[in-house]
Amino acid sequence: MSYTAPIKDMLFVMKELAGLPEVAALPGFEDATVETAAAVLDESAKLCGEVLAPLNVEGDRNPSVWKDGAVTAAPGFKDAFRQFAEGGWQGVQHPTDYEGQGLPKLIATPCVEMLNAANLSFALCPLLTDGAIEALLTAGTEEQKQRYVPKLISGEWTGTMNLTEPQAGSDLALVRTRAEPQGDGTYRVFGTKIFITWGEHDMAKNIVHLVLARTPDAPEGVKGISLFIVPKFLVNDDDSLGARNDVHCVSIEHKLGIKASPTAVLQFGDHGGAIGYLIGEANRGLEYMFIMMNAARFAVGMQGVAVADRAYQKAVAYAKERVQSRPVDGSAKNAVSIIHHPDVRRMLSTMRALTEGARALAYVAAAHSDIAHRHADAAVRDEHQAIYEYLVPVVKGWSTELSIDVASLGVQVHGGMGFIEETGAAQYYRDARILPIYEGTTAIQANDLVGRKTLRDGGAVARKLIARVGETIQELAAQDDVAFAVMREQLAHGQQALANVVDFVLANAKQDPNAVFAGSVPYLKLAGIVLCGWQMARAMLVAAREQASDPAFYGAKLATARFYAEQVLPQAAALEVAIRSCKGGEGVLALSEDQF
Amino acid sequence: MSYTAPIKDMLFVMKELAGLPEVAALPGFEDATVETAAAVLDESAKLCGEVLAPLNVEGDRNPSVWKDGAVTAAPGFKDAFRQFAEGGWQGVQHPTDYEGQGLPKLIATPCVEMLNAANLSFALCPLLTDGAIEALLTAGTEEQKQRYVPKLISGEWTGTMNLTEPQAGSDLALVRTRAEPQGDGTYRVFGTKIFITWGEHDMAKNIVHLVLARTPDAPEGVKGISLFIVPKFLVNDDDSLGARNDVHCVSIEHKLGIKASPTAVLQFGDHGGAIGYLIGEANRGLEYMFIMMNAARFAVGMQGVAVADRAYQKAVAYAKERVQSRPVDGSAKNAVSIIHHPDVRRMLSTMRALTEGARALAYVAAAHSDIAHRHADAAVRDEHQAIYEYLVPVVKGWSTELSIDVASLGVQVHGGMGFIEETGAAQYYRDARILPIYEGTTAIQANDLVGRKTLRDGGAVARKLIARVGETIQELAAQDDVAFAVMREQLAHGQQALANVVDFVLANAKQDPNAVFAGSVPYLKLAGIVLCGWQMARAMLVAAREQASDPAFYGAKLATARFYAEQVLPQAAALEVAIRSCKGGEGVLALSEDQF
Repeated sequence: MSYTAPIKDMLFVMKELAGLPEVAALPGFEDATVETAAAVLDESAKLCGEVLAPLNVEGDRNPSVWKDGAVTAAPGFKDAFRQFAEGGWQGVQHPTDYEGQGLPKLIATPCVEMLNAANLSFALCPLLTDGAIEALLTAGTEEQKQRYVPKLISGEWTGTMNLTEPQAGSDLALVRTRAEPQGDGTYRVFGTKIFITWGEHDMAKNIVHLVLARTPDAPEGVKGISLFIVPKFLVNDDDSLGARNDVHCVSIEHKLGIKASPTAVLQFGDHGGAIGYLIGEANRGLEYMFIMMNAARFAVGMQGVAVADRAYQKAVAYAKERVQSRPVDGSAKNAVSIIHHPDVRRMLSTMRALTEGARALAYVAAAHSDIAHRHADAAVRDEHQAIYEYLVPVVKGWSTELSIDVASLGVQVHGGMGFIEETGAAQYYRDARILPIYEGTTAIQANDLVGRKTLRDGGAVARKLIARVGETIQELAAQDDVAFAVMREQLAHGQQALANVVDFVLANAKQDPNAVFAGSVPYLKLAGIVLCGWQMARAMLVAAREQASDPAFYGAKLATARFYAEQVLPQAAALEVAIRSCKGGEGVLALSEDQF
Repeated sequence: MSYTAPIKDMLFVMKELAGLPEVAALPGFEDATVETAAAVLDESAKLCGEVLAPLNVEGDRNPSVWKDGAVTAAPGFKDAFRQFAEGGWQGVQHPTDYEGQGLPKLIATPCVEMLNAANLSFALCPLLTDGAIEALLTAGTEEQKQRYVPKLISGEWTGTMNLTEPQAGSDLALVRTRAEPQGDGTYRVFGTKIFITWGEHDMAKNIVHLVLARTPDAPEGVKGISLFIVPKFLVNDDDSLGARNDVHCVSIEHKLGIKASPTAVLQFGDHGGAIGYLIGEANRGLEYMFIMMNAARFAVGMQGVAVADRAYQKAVAYAKERVQSRPVDGSAKNAVSIIHHPDVRRMLSTMRALTEGARALAYVAAAHSDIAHRHADAAVRDEHQAIYEYLVPVVKGWSTELSIDVASLGVQVHGGMGFIEETGAAQYYRDARILPIYEGTTAIQANDLVGRKTLRDGGAVARKLIARVGETIQELAAQDDVAFAVMREQLAHGQQALANVVDFVLANAKQDPNAVFAGSVPYLKLAGIVLCGWQMARAMLVAAREQASDPAFYGAKLATARFYAEQVLPQAAALEVAIRSCKGGEGVLALSEDQF
């Protein structure tokens, strides 16, 4: 099989690091036991490994095709989507009231990881549909929810997010698409949207576009943007499909990667106006869109973990099979499989350690989200929501940035063969490249981390997390082995660097915003390195406790955590220097535009 | 123009850092004045900017095509090659005795950079021809030299290197191609070679393949490999072309990048044997091939610098043009071009600083090579040759590794547009990915750095370079400005880290070779970061002296060097920790094969 879901690792993180038992104790999640989780993951792994993973290369070679306004999905995708829909996979984390399965995000998250590892292009369609469902559930009327959500959950229809326009990418204040009220409660929408993932396809009967647009009397800037439902086919009162709406796919992009997922240019209103329905209140569209975006950002972070793991699995398989050169320590007379060469080990261990750390942090974040939604105590909910919100840009930014490095190492492990497209390693390198860009670039995530997540609460959540890292450092001290001493030392350095940087951000944001925002991406990376390292340290403590029951598995956890401590965590100090150096701007901001 | 050669920067490095005047004082290089260099660079820049750069995208979209054993080069390439050949560009650094121009490598190197920046795929053909010329000049008979070299220099013919076989990549001990003596001094060659760059094409009348093969009585392993000339067309005594030789291109690869350069599978001897001519002595083929490889490795390092600079230029152009979002410091009410955003600045400055540092180190290495070839004093020649040989794996490994990061940042600067192939930024990201692989992977470079370049002389050259870094640190102390203090501090940290690591390598290579080779790539990167940082520091000293004459240019040198000190050099400490942690192998080598 080209992809085998790492179920044992996933369950380890869910149970031991993210606290699945605590999540299962929340009201409404009583069924979310470890046994249920294991059963769900097993089923998901089958679909992903057997049906979706083999289509990944196929979709890359034979991308979705546009012709006369219609897009035909890549070969096999339509049938695979039918199986995905029939299995109920779109509804894992959505409420039972709308025919979802009502499981925690903590259980849905490994399913999302598997789906993306198996087939990133395919998984984007459900990813966007999830976002549309979240937005409708949050801001839609009950009628809108009843009309759209069950069909989206069943996979009869899919959803999209329509934000970007040629002049409005990161800066949504520049959105120009307009929505004119028709007097009957509906609107007519006119404009062009670009980069619309799965904006047109033949895998579902209808597509529910959620579209940012301006009403005629709206104020300028981001406070004048509203959110509209614009279905591809209008929906009759009996829920049957009616007329084709005036939204048309005029082209799809020729991209570096994720080629099977059609990236559409959508034209609204060229034939009289596309019928749209306002969601929630006018001019609050951006707020609602952020609901979709936050769900999508977390999911894109999972895409980073997913493609990293897939690249790792492929590299390991090749390294075990490819025989080349004698070992440097003279332990064999003939050439050995390259996994025995120290540098190949270093590359594979780097891929593994980064991926495991990113997975752990993401699952922990998912558990915070579950508690934030379901805990009986509002104060507890708020606390966990704040932590989740701090972690979302870190999960999104750090997991996706590292996925490029991991995929690049995966190519390198393959040597010359890695550069040949038929080998398949290059696809991950191409596919991963979009992840730090869409759903908000790493800089946008970093701005969010600095602005909304650090400055707004005066660093309270950041410091709470830093203190918890400190608790883990204390626990490491109780362990005897040298590996724990190594982790303790490096995690303490990392923790101190992160604390210093949070102080720096708080102290300088007002008088030297350029310095703080020049250092914002390094801050995000620092937070990613340290908080993932924290999870690796927590995994060590569990491994020490459980080691006797499964020495190979827990021994690998200990060794991988130590590798992370030695090879990854030391970068924290360099990032701290880089960030603090931004002050005054003599280095990072000194050049005039003409000097570039 | 899509590529403008940075002539001013190049001349600055040549003159101020690499010592062009000293090179011009060497016997035989009297004509290599700064004026000559400037004139050569101007001419080269015209050809590269006007003829070759526009074909870069074209070649990516319409790669070279294989049909019935023949390869047709990408559109426009044949005519461009004719212009390249007629301009005498193949011969810049080759001896006048064989119709070359006899200029120093220090002048040829910026020409190589431009050629590769303009069109990496195209430039590979001259790059391989250079290697073939070097090998022939070193090990060929006078008759062989007279027969092949002038035609290779004139561009009538081109050259290739035939090393790799399906089972023999990094490990040439596994080469199986055989050469059977015919009793008349010639051989018949049988075997399959893969990954042969420009192994077949229609840009020249003949192709001179240099081929590694074994004679029947050769010992096993690398000591039984000989080097043969196997021309595509046999050459008659009057130098006219004779019969088609029995070497045929059976396919070309479908690659991630450098698509216009055909990567051939060559079949030797399927129709009775390909006629080959031994070069030098039997069984010394690998030694001769290393002559080609060392020339080629340095040139591939230049490819890294080149693609990094091209990606930088494109990103800067986009960042100046693309308007998006208001500035974070509130200095404008409306959206501004994104070059005004701190994170975009950080990305562009990172690209710029890494590229400038790598260029400077490479040119400095080229000057050492010139002195090693031409100095009157043998002891001086040896000293410079040793330094050059230490620097070659650093230039190759570090410049190519960073070129991926720089090209990746280039995509990121473009946001969503970067992922669209039509934009062009993605091509550099794809093209760059081969650079740390071919002509010896980064691990192979790192093994060379550890084994031949550090252990063999007991660290003598490494320590000499480290001492010279120390001299520059002293000179920085004489300068008043805070930028110099910053550089002094960070370069001193880097110097110490490099010194510690060299000691570590020397102390542990025998009893813990796995540790040393697990840390070898980090050692190479550390050497790259520190030695490039050293060049940035030297540039600062020049800039301080010359600033009044050209404040914008020298001010940019000062700011870029400071950026390098603050944002790049701090990584040295992290690498030192990572390298020293390899000792004992508990982190990097602890997992068994099954645990992966």
